[in-house]
Amino acid sequence: MKMINYRLGDVVRAGCIVDNQVIDLHQAYVARLRAKGCPRAEQLAAALVPPNTIELLEGGEKSLEEAQKAVEFALENGLVIDRANVKIEAPILKPNKIVCVGHNYREHILEMKRELPEYPVIFAKFSNTIIGPEDNIPLPPITSQLDYEAEFAFVIGKRARNVKQAEALEYVAGYTIVNDVTARDLQRRTIQWLQGKTLDGSAPMGPWLVTKDEIPDPHSLEISLSVNGEERQRSNTKNLVFNVHYLVEFLSHIMTLEPGDVICTGTPGGVGVARNPQVFLQHGDVVRIEVERIGVLENRVAAVPSQVEVESSCR
Amino acid sequence: MKMINYRLGDVVRAGCIVDNQVIDLHQAYVARLRAKGCPRAEQLAAALVPPNTIELLEGGEKSLEEAQKAVEFALENGLVIDRANVKIEAPILKPNKIVCVGHNYREHILEMKRELPEYPVIFAKFSNTIIGPEDNIPLPPITSQLDYEAEFAFVIGKRARNVKQAEALEYVAGYTIVNDVTARDLQRRTIQWLQGKTLDGSAPMGPWLVTKDEIPDPHSLEISLSVNGEERQRSNTKNLVFNVHYLVEFLSHIMTLEPGDVICTGTPGGVGVARNPQVFLQHGDVVRIEVERIGVLENRVAAVPSQVEVESSCR
Repeated sequence: MKMINYRLGDVVRAGCIVDNQVIDLHQAYVARLRAKGCPRAEQLAAALVPPNTIELLEGGEKSLEEAQKAVEFALENGLVIDRANVKIEAPILKPNKIVCVGHNYREHILEMKRELPEYPVIFAKFSNTIIGPEDNIPLPPITSQLDYEAEFAFVIGKRARNVKQAEALEYVAGYTIVNDVTARDLQRRTIQWLQGKTLDGSAPMGPWLVTKDEIPDPHSLEISLSVNGEERQRSNTKNLVFNVHYLVEFLSHIMTLEPGDVICTGTPGGVGVARNPQVFLQHGDVVRIEVERIGVLENRVAAVPSQVEVESSCR
Repeated sequence: MKMINYRLGDVVRAGCIVDNQVIDLHQAYVARLRAKGCPRAEQLAAALVPPNTIELLEGGEKSLEEAQKAVEFALENGLVIDRANVKIEAPILKPNKIVCVGHNYREHILEMKRELPEYPVIFAKFSNTIIGPEDNIPLPPITSQLDYEAEFAFVIGKRARNVKQAEALEYVAGYTIVNDVTARDLQRRTIQWLQGKTLDGSAPMGPWLVTKDEIPDPHSLEISLSVNGEERQRSNTKNLVFNVHYLVEFLSHIMTLEPGDVICTGTPGGVGVARNPQVFLQHGDVVRIEVERIGVLENRVAAVPSQVEVESSCR
């Protein structure tokens, strides 16, 4: 299943996309229960197929199975919305954690004459970074070195603590693409990268979460990135030094992972800061990431005014 | 106001503590509205004084004023719970961000013969780290170098983006204490600190959030830490290189700050790893942090078994 968040007006809800048809999972499940004459269809659907993607993931295999039935029912009964009528948002809107892995593509490390690391380098982005596949990447005046990083990401589906590699995939809900947009000048101001990694809107994610049943082997996927049509990064997830299984074990021994947590597995060689001459993202640039079996995440870079008005805290 | 989260059975709700009396803010506000003959008291209270501390902060000055009226009503009418009957949890349970500042006490930097930094070093902890003032600090087998860091922390009360120092305090809800517990061996495995900073339970917080009206000057507070009664750290927030005003401006130019976000302002000299000989936390140690005008945060260190059973993802 290609799980999405879709926006219609002010409301963002969990959906699924089949070709160019969007299905509202919760509504479709309610309709299916009603068609079966099930009492308390709304309440049952709220429990089993809730309209929030993280809550849906918290429901585990059972919720995904029921969601799949909802999709079949919706397709059979024409309960679909044309993709053109909605906006697609990031598949996970407010994860508790975004954990990123640095220096994780073997060929890139070797070409840089570095040794393969003993432990993954991990760092954080906060959820203020998340934007969707139809959003622009903000280029704020605080940086003049905005850079891209194509990343294959996985999303946790089940609370994970001290998990072994052999069981790792039980805790993974599925896969998506993240552009780990980085302000190199801010990243390198101090010894810790966070300030260059967590600008508002610096984690375009999507276009959807592909559930793991559709990708039997996450370690054989071609990944590439282009800027304005010019290829800048290309590798394959087979080159990951620390793969999905390893990372689930490693991370879950440090911290409890929760449904909806997003793990970005690192970026291949070819980032702008490492090119000769260096090249950074400019207003109007189009950054396109493709990962085999997942799809394409494409965002345009848009300069933001020097002093954005402070928004009201009214909800 | 000393704002808390208190637990009674399975339920955690926003409260306020006056001497040793706990007041449920939402319930007290409902009672006050009912006493005034107000229709839809529950709904009004849910909007103005909700039982979740972050949502309460999102309500801004208006919600805090109403909460204050609720406290007065509760005290006049005996709507109080004895502190001994509840468990006090961290005042913010699941912040969107925990931003920590490194190397921020002037005298400690100078005694280490370092130069004062041009920019704050910032790094993250995730919300899996948060425990309350009555919880134990877990000492898991993955580390043999668990260390303390006494920190004065402030909590954001209003969405903040591109805020100037002069207006900074408008965006602060109040102040609390955080122990930025750190696994030094994990912190130093790689060039990024995150893995040593985000162990489960490594951010004891509390005992309460003191609203800013009670602390007119956040930069004149004595801060000290002891282990088993032996003083290890002592300084004063007047020694902060980057103070609250500066940090609100600095951080809000990088990322949008949201109500409930916790900013830990850094730790004075005297951490275990910097002592000669080095000394790390052991099972049974009692770590006590006192910050003037806030109070005392005291937690015991407790070894956790080598293989904690993986919890069910059932909610």
